Amino acid sequence: MTHIAFIGLGNMGLPMARNLLKAGYPLSVFDLQRSAVDTLVGEGALAADSATDAASRAQVVISMLPASRHVTDLYLGENGLLERLKTGTRVIECSTIAPEAARKVHTAARERGIVLLDAPVSGGTSGAAAATLTFMVGGDTEALEKARPILAAMGRNIFHAGPAGAGQVAKVCNNQVLAVQMIATAEAMALGVANGLEPIVLAEIMRQSSGGNWTLEKYNPWPGVMEHAPASNDYSGGFMVELMAKDLGLAQETANHNGNSAPMGALALQLYRLLLKQGKGKQDFSVVQQLFI
Amino acid sequence: MTHIAFIGLGNMGLPMARNLLKAGYPLSVFDLQRSAVDTLVGEGALAADSATDAASRAQVVISMLPASRHVTDLYLGENGLLERLKTGTRVIECSTIAPEAARKVHTAARERGIVLLDAPVSGGTSGAAAATLTFMVGGDTEALEKARPILAAMGRNIFHAGPAGAGQVAKVCNNQVLAVQMIATAEAMALGVANGLEPIVLAEIMRQSSGGNWTLEKYNPWPGVMEHAPASNDYSGGFMVELMAKDLGLAQETANHNGNSAPMGALALQLYRLLLKQGKGKQDFSVVQQLFI
Amino acid sequence: MTHIAFIGLGNMGLPMARNLLKAGYPLSVFDLQRSAVDTLVGEGALAADSATDAASRAQVVISMLPASRHVTDLYLGENGLLERLKTGTRVIECSTIAPEAARKVHTAARERGIVLLDAPVSGGTSGAAAATLTFMVGGDTEALEKARPILAAMGRNIFHAGPAGAGQVAKVCNNQVLAVQMIATAEAMALGVANGLEPIVLAEIMRQSSGGNWTLEKYNPWPGVMEHAPASNDYSGGFMVELMAKDLGLAQETANHNGNSAPMGALALQLYRLLLKQGKGKQDFSVVQQLFI
Amino acid sequence: MTHIAFIGLGNMGLPMARNLLKAGYPLSVFDLQRSAVDTLVGEGALAADSATDAASRAQVVISMLPASRHVTDLYLGENGLLERLKTGTRVIECSTIAPEAARKVHTAARERGIVLLDAPVSGGTSGAAAATLTFMVGGDTEALEKARPILAAMGRNIFHAGPAGAGQVAKVCNNQVLAVQMIATAEAMALGVANGLEPIVLAEIMRQSSGGNWTLEKYNPWPGVMEHAPASNDYSGGFMVELMAKDLGLAQETANHNGNSAPMGALALQLYRLLLKQGKGKQDFSVVQQLFI
Repeated sequence: MTHIAFIGLGNMGLPMARNLLKAGYPLSVFDLQRSAVDTLVGEGALAADSATDAASRAQVVISMLPASRHVTDLYLGENGLLERLKTGTRVIECSTIAPEAARKVHTAARERGIVLLDAPVSGGTSGAAAATLTFMVGGDTEALEKARPILAAMGRNIFHAGPAGAGQVAKVCNNQVLAVQMIATAEAMALGVANGLEPIVLAEIMRQSSGGNWTLEKYNPWPGVMEHAPASNDYSGGFMVELMAKDLGLAQETANHNGNSAPMGALALQLYRLLLKQGKGKQDFSVVQQLFI
Repeated sequence: MTHIAFIGLGNMGLPMARNLLKAGYPLSVFDLQRSAVDTLVGEGALAADSATDAASRAQVVISMLPASRHVTDLYLGENGLLERLKTGTRVIECSTIAPEAARKVHTAARERGIVLLDAPVSGGTSGAAAATLTFMVGGDTEALEKARPILAAMGRNIFHAGPAGAGQVAKVCNNQVLAVQMIATAEAMALGVANGLEPIVLAEIMRQSSGGNWTLEKYNPWPGVMEHAPASNDYSGGFMVELMAKDLGLAQETANHNGNSAPMGALALQLYRLLLKQGKGKQDFSVVQQLFI
Repeated sequence: MTHIAFIGLGNMGLPMARNLLKAGYPLSVFDLQRSAVDTLVGEGALAADSATDAASRAQVVISMLPASRHVTDLYLGENGLLERLKTGTRVIECSTIAPEAARKVHTAARERGIVLLDAPVSGGTSGAAAATLTFMVGGDTEALEKARPILAAMGRNIFHAGPAGAGQVAKVCNNQVLAVQMIATAEAMALGVANGLEPIVLAEIMRQSSGGNWTLEKYNPWPGVMEHAPASNDYSGGFMVELMAKDLGLAQETANHNGNSAPMGALALQLYRLLLKQGKGKQDFSVVQQLFI
Repeated sequence: MTHIAFIGLGNMGLPMARNLLKAGYPLSVFDLQRSAVDTLVGEGALAADSATDAASRAQVVISMLPASRHVTDLYLGENGLLERLKTGTRVIECSTIAPEAARKVHTAARERGIVLLDAPVSGGTSGAAAATLTFMVGGDTEALEKARPILAAMGRNIFHAGPAGAGQVAKVCNNQVLAVQMIATAEAMALGVANGLEPIVLAEIMRQSSGGNWTLEKYNPWPGVMEHAPASNDYSGGFMVELMAKDLGLAQETANHNGNSAPMGALALQLYRLLLKQGKGKQDFSVVQQLFI
């Protein structure tokens, strides 16, 4: 079975790697946090001393890192991985980073004959644990088809967004829409309740009408409307404000690069930054509800 | 069968009244436009010379008028209808107006022993014609139950939003969310396409992901993504920019009244006003896409 | 000397009335708060039992009330003042209200042969006390010339903005610009300081450059930059957030009425509402700085 | 007299270099556009074949380039200038670029013992021609004092903003405030005129009141209010929309880097991008007025 190197074992990477182990893939793992490596070694993975070490044994490299600079450092920095990968190694880059940065890594990979996919995910830590992530993939169709079984061990929906970088673009577009409709829903809930409507009634009317959106289906920001939503659990769990702010920043950076206008996305970013200033960065992003009540 | 007076036979009112005729209700109709009255008389309605005349024969009065001031004039103005209705007449007020104005009419009706419902609709002229409107109703449960067969002759979904005025509140909340997510979707489509994604692919990824919303399900603003959406038909048909601007204005007026903050809704209103300034008031509200490309 | 009736002795009205007394005008005063009346009686005014009573002795009526509805009640309500004023009485309406409402009162006054000016002020309570208010006046030029000595006893700058209601329009336009530039200045101060600039240095550079504005001249929102600004005094004194929110609401209401787009003003209103939700309504409006740090 | 190398002879650089010639400085000039070099050679400058060639003869290097990447390429790229400058060469970097990029060049210069100032300008092409530019300078006080006579040959106001990069920060802060107050003024002008006020009267009232700002002093966006403003000349001349969009993009990039919230600046950027989409990038930035009328 394909030997996989997994680099980056944070809140997302660790459960993703674990699902590969469960699916039977031989796995070499590396992270700067030794404890994360040890955890997976206890479950059957091989420890590596460095990203290069992990990659040296593998046919496929998967990386899951916090931000653009970590990814460009890993692949393009001094002693960068792209210089050291064996011919024929395939790379699946799952971090959420700027489309620009993703395209830069793609180009460098292509020059060295390395097949690379950008494959950012959505679904959060619970999706990572449950192997129900969504992958939005940029790169060649053929490369995606070869990677599909591996992705399927970690997620449920696998979309081919388009050529190099398209996965990142789809991700930032999606998350920008998500943030905006979360805030729109929170504004409407606050306005309705201030006018005497029952939160559950208003939520249900909008859900079934033209205001319907994913937040009304799965993730209502008003406490008590949905039992399992973060809003009903003190806005804990879920998708953190600081991560949403990061993704909205990537979206605006991309718009900046293209000269595009995205006023709703821009305003969403600024409102999430107000929440960061209020110290709510670790709470679920539906906590934006509290701005309005 | 209940005799109904229908006042206001515009783009919405006329097909709604026609559906009542089809359902067999005896109908007296009035509009300042004589031609609309004549049309319905040709289909079996009785012509009335005035709102009061129409109401004099009816057990139920339905009104469908353009704005708050028309409604308050009709019911509360000099020679206002509330002074002249027979005891026991029931009123179903279907215009989209300010919740404040709706509550004022409710209060005056109650003082005169008249049972009134605010019952604004969504679904547009096509929904009015097809009798598939959604009604969002404010007022007593009992009154709604009595009105339900009549509403069912004109629409499909009938929601009880809460007490007096709650129908209007639910409507403005819903339409504010709708406008915001339409603009968010348009921004994302433009951003994705500028980065080389296929519009249909991006639309489908977001529809199935956390960015999913009603506009991605039914009404994509990018031309060609959905064959039957206004965007694929030169932004004609559908829900006009000027009507969306009106509803967003009502939402902000309501927020103003409550001291609520609704930044996304406020920005949506300003962007729709830019479109009005560009002379696009009669186009479908998905034409906001053109701001971004 | 002209006998003046002064109606509305709040934080603004009381010191304004006092300045008229100091200037030697015979003054009849009325307010629902008896204590305010008593204070001025102790300084030489005549107490009145009602607005009508005050006006009955006067050639000129001045009103200074909180909001549109108080003004329309006073002049147009049941037993409204316009029905009772002697022919030839002149009215100076100093409240800040919706231009729409001001025009309505103007029209009713004209129909009854009463000469009326809308004359809202800026300058706050300190300007009221020091008789340095700015008056923005709508109405006939001739009427303004006759009123000028009276206004000059209470203020320093007297602008003729235009016909009926123009004073209110100028006021909301001015205050909308003020709010926006206050927030813009606060954003820039926060951004500069986060990048290591000294607040005083940055403030001075912008003041002398194209970013220069009244807030940088007189009212810097960063604590310590200007010794006498509210920011250096825990954001106390000055112009309260709740009053700025009121004026921004009037501006948006006016824009709504005209179908105008004013996105900066709309966003400013929403941000001030966030501050209201945070319980900062009684602090100076420069407290918006705290959103950004 | 100090021999100066001037690199980048565009719309700004050429007149700036010319003023150095007029002041008697020996000047070596380089630009990729040979015609700009020839023009200055005709006025007494020495032509250089490359930036390195120009710098080889000079004690002071001045650069004036379009964007961050040009500056980092010039100084830090392959064959970058910092590797080749003689010890003791002083650099005055006048381009408007990201503070981040400026700090990077500063750091690299310091490592090589090169004294560098970031000194972006405001005042536009007319200020460049008239030697009335404003310089906002980041770097050591001592270095600035040595550079002051040179800067004084090109400009009038020279501000020391703070340490490395502070000039860029001051510039983006200032221009963000400028953009926001321009739009705020344009909104208010449109709103006032829609309500019947004379543009000149409204402009004057706000100028003298708390809405006063640089645009009302020097640069009113309503055609005809100020004879010499771009608005009275079909929005030609002045500061182009595309340059304002660039500066607002730098401001947001800086805010992004700091995690700062700047909602007014963000909205201004999006509105200027709408103007770019409308093909108005080459018009003066006061053309934003046209969005609102």
